[in-house]
Amino acid sequence: MRNFEYYNPVKIVFGKGTIGELSGLISKDKKILLAYGGGSIKKNGVYDQVIDALKGYSVVEFAGIGPNPQYDTCMRAVKVVKDEKIDFILSVGGGSVLDAVKFIAAATMFEGPEPWDILTKSAEIKSAVPLGCVLTLPATGSEMNTNAVISRKETGEKLAFSSQQVYPVFSILDPETTYSLPVKQVTNGVVDAYVHVMEQYMTYDVNSPVQDRFAEGLLKTLIEEGQKVMQEPQNYEVRANIMWAATMALNGLIGQGVEQDWATHMIGHELTALYNIDHARTLAIVMPAVWKHQRESKGAKLAQYARRVWDVQTSDEDEAVDAAIQKTIDFFRSLDVPTTLGDVDLTPADCAKAVEQLRERGAKLGERGVISAKEVEEIFVLAA
Amino acid sequence: MRNFEYYNPVKIVFGKGTIGELSGLISKDKKILLAYGGGSIKKNGVYDQVIDALKGYSVVEFAGIGPNPQYDTCMRAVKVVKDEKIDFILSVGGGSVLDAVKFIAAATMFEGPEPWDILTKSAEIKSAVPLGCVLTLPATGSEMNTNAVISRKETGEKLAFSSQQVYPVFSILDPETTYSLPVKQVTNGVVDAYVHVMEQYMTYDVNSPVQDRFAEGLLKTLIEEGQKVMQEPQNYEVRANIMWAATMALNGLIGQGVEQDWATHMIGHELTALYNIDHARTLAIVMPAVWKHQRESKGAKLAQYARRVWDVQTSDEDEAVDAAIQKTIDFFRSLDVPTTLGDVDLTPADCAKAVEQLRERGAKLGERGVISAKEVEEIFVLAA
Repeated sequence: MRNFEYYNPVKIVFGKGTIGELSGLISKDKKILLAYGGGSIKKNGVYDQVIDALKGYSVVEFAGIGPNPQYDTCMRAVKVVKDEKIDFILSVGGGSVLDAVKFIAAATMFEGPEPWDILTKSAEIKSAVPLGCVLTLPATGSEMNTNAVISRKETGEKLAFSSQQVYPVFSILDPETTYSLPVKQVTNGVVDAYVHVMEQYMTYDVNSPVQDRFAEGLLKTLIEEGQKVMQEPQNYEVRANIMWAATMALNGLIGQGVEQDWATHMIGHELTALYNIDHARTLAIVMPAVWKHQRESKGAKLAQYARRVWDVQTSDEDEAVDAAIQKTIDFFRSLDVPTTLGDVDLTPADCAKAVEQLRERGAKLGERGVISAKEVEEIFVLAA
Repeated sequence: MRNFEYYNPVKIVFGKGTIGELSGLISKDKKILLAYGGGSIKKNGVYDQVIDALKGYSVVEFAGIGPNPQYDTCMRAVKVVKDEKIDFILSVGGGSVLDAVKFIAAATMFEGPEPWDILTKSAEIKSAVPLGCVLTLPATGSEMNTNAVISRKETGEKLAFSSQQVYPVFSILDPETTYSLPVKQVTNGVVDAYVHVMEQYMTYDVNSPVQDRFAEGLLKTLIEEGQKVMQEPQNYEVRANIMWAATMALNGLIGQGVEQDWATHMIGHELTALYNIDHARTLAIVMPAVWKHQRESKGAKLAQYARRVWDVQTSDEDEAVDAAIQKTIDFFRSLDVPTTLGDVDLTPADCAKAVEQLRERGAKLGERGVISAKEVEEIFVLAA
């Protein structure tokens, strides 16, 4: 195990009917920006619950934060936060709204000339407006971590930043808020969380059995509950278990002291930025191809995964690796998630622009830093 | 899964050579009480490392905090903290020193007439002196939780309290500090952590697969690494894995949203208070007897544990339960830890005083609250 520092002060309020606890979590004198997306929270009753819980507070609303939240939208919100002298930003929605809120919180206090530098130049974030979250879509783990991803349409960029300044003060996770999600969003969320675990697990062994077994436990849970949610979309326990697994998948814990990969995410972000393919779907397409390409380097861990997560019994390492890759693809397909470029009507040649972008940035991806643009090109061929 | 709230802001600094980071964790203007135990840290070099890291700070020392830390000792330290106007208390040692420091931190700021009320009457802790920890013995989990246990010799009491006010600001976990521990303390620590997991796991099913699998992962790790540490006491990776598993065993995470037991601890505390038997050893004696007594109520989970942790293959539930109990006893014995009252030269009749104490307090132990003094008497017979 490598040395590590772990610090995660997010207060998680988990369970049925917990939105009502908002007023105990934000002090009464705060002026709140209520940030949300396209209005689904108005249809499923979450908006009403939040407004009800915030009676007596001064609240300004900012709606219209879409998937792959845009820099321009965030900067419009920054103006509102400044003009209205907002003290606290409450994100109500999924990971996209929360990622936008994290960026808005940091950009408001940013001292440099251009907050975009936070994303392109890792400009230092010295402080941020305090923020909290009511989560309605389990997937990104943003509710309990320091990360956010922001996009810019005009340049086709999708970039991440990370800072302890943007930890939510609290996150309310009420699984009932997820009942009204379209099936596609639920299964995308399961795949997203699954791949988050993999980015921290499917690397090489550094003798970290606690982290490995926690990761395997999350994978098994996502497999079982992911399949159940297709059959029983209104089952509270299933929703609750997916929600908690997705949070634990990317709150930093399972990634402490181990090698991490993230090549799949970096490559997937390019496909989303260029072709607007759902984030989770890009991951399901790219990850199996990364594994095929890195088969030798990841072989031992792929075999461990096959045996411990999929109960593959063979003693043959090659067979175990084959099973690991195929069972993962089969699992994604069982959730009606595409697993090849062909499934989303793309060819490897269509991805040349993505390769170019990664070449320009001098990408050296993966836990060993050996996946550069040339290898990404080969990975797209394997994903055909 | 039950509703829950989880909040754990302890900063963990984990790994080789991390004691040197102390000066980055406490601001320079703080006056520090350096609290430790019987002097083993002076023999193994930890004291020197700490003193070296604290150059430039104003430091007052308080030594002599023993196992099962005593109320009187703590109250002497409270006087020092007040007289010396201490701003920060640094615990250097195992769980006993840290538990004492937590109590000292709370008792110093306690507004009532008698800090003992914190333990007997759950008197409210409104604030505490900030505290941090350099851990030298993995076992209690105190380094990342809100709990502490304090004893009082004159009354034969050993009582616990819990408050978010006594979360350590940071805990430094350097596995190398554990090399010099006597084998008995290492194996006691493994058993203590193992039983901590069990108190949160071996109850009844509330459909919480993430928590179950995390618990099972910790148990498997403690079994494997616990056996390795007997063979290879100077293996860094083994020490590191035990240390991290022990922290995760009782930092609150695996206990969120599930039923908890703690009967074994409550009964074990009585044996320690009366007969001065090591805490972990009381647990290893009591827990199998609790399981035998609660066999019906815990049957399904015992069988799950047998299958998932010990790879027991039988489809017969009774056989699986038998195996669960026997394999646990065998594991403890493989660590040279006693598992019966006879092993520590006691009979069930010798435990009458413990039963009496629990009767006086109106004990209703276990996840269903059905273990009262009468049942404890039966449990002692099963532990004979």
